[in-house]
Amino acid sequence: MLIDEGLELLDDDQCLELLRSGKVGRVGLTIGAMPAIFPVNYMLVDGWIVYLTSHGTKLSAAAEGTIVAFEVDDYDPARRSGWSVLAVGPSEVVVDPQPSLQVRIARLVPYAIGPRTTIIRIRPELLSGRRVLPLVDCLPAG
Amino acid sequence: MLIDEGLELLDDDQCLELLRSGKVGRVGLTIGAMPAIFPVNYMLVDGWIVYLTSHGTKLSAAAEGTIVAFEVDDYDPARRSGWSVLAVGPSEVVVDPQPSLQVRIARLVPYAIGPRTTIIRIRPELLSGRRVLPLVDCLPAG
Repeated sequence: MLIDEGLELLDDDQCLELLRSGKVGRVGLTIGAMPAIFPVNYMLVDGWIVYLTSHGTKLSAAAEGTIVAFEVDDYDPARRSGWSVLAVGPSEVVVDPQPSLQVRIARLVPYAIGPRTTIIRIRPELLSGRRVLPLVDCLPAG
Repeated sequence: MLIDEGLELLDDDQCLELLRSGKVGRVGLTIGAMPAIFPVNYMLVDGWIVYLTSHGTKLSAAAEGTIVAFEVDDYDPARRSGWSVLAVGPSEVVVDPQPSLQVRIARLVPYAIGPRTTIIRIRPELLSGRRVLPLVDCLPAG
């Protein structure tokens, strides 16, 4: 267990397990030279982060062929405990999805009502994760 | 109420009210040419988004003098309802905080245990917000 400033650093397997467990994540990208973050419902399919968006939006254009950040976290401010995982990698529109992906994606509930049929996928090439240690674990024993 | 793809678009006052109500937000910036997103505990002080970080980290360096994204949301996947607010603006280290800011910041619980004493502030110059309409509100009345 590697500790950095009160945070336990997670390895790639731990990050992937937490990515697999999440439902809502946040995509960080640049739209018209401005940084932006959008929440999305996502799932991990064959090692890719996959989410749905609307065709032809600024978001789907910005996600095409660029390196994006994707973050998932769970945090309880009262207990001051939780975790966060950051994945960084290339993002692309899936033009012709494989049948296996179509079956999986059919189970993904889009973030909101509306015609969200454009599939975006992110390859998590760089993973980093931190677990916030509950207060009690940081106090000296005894 | 402006509707866009099943989302209600929020005006600046609604965005600020939601920003004021949040505790955990996510900062989106670029570290060494790579996009990154980090969760932070924050508060709104005199119209600035303020959070604490550790002195001399990559995060504090990246936040100095750059335009960053800051996002807060609350979402219930089961009910498919919630909201998100995105603020974009310049970010800077507060070198010599005013006494009034010191008093306010003393009440801010840092994200994790550790020496987080560097104050970062973001001026929310561009605000955008969306509320996800619950399923029932999108069905035709009958």
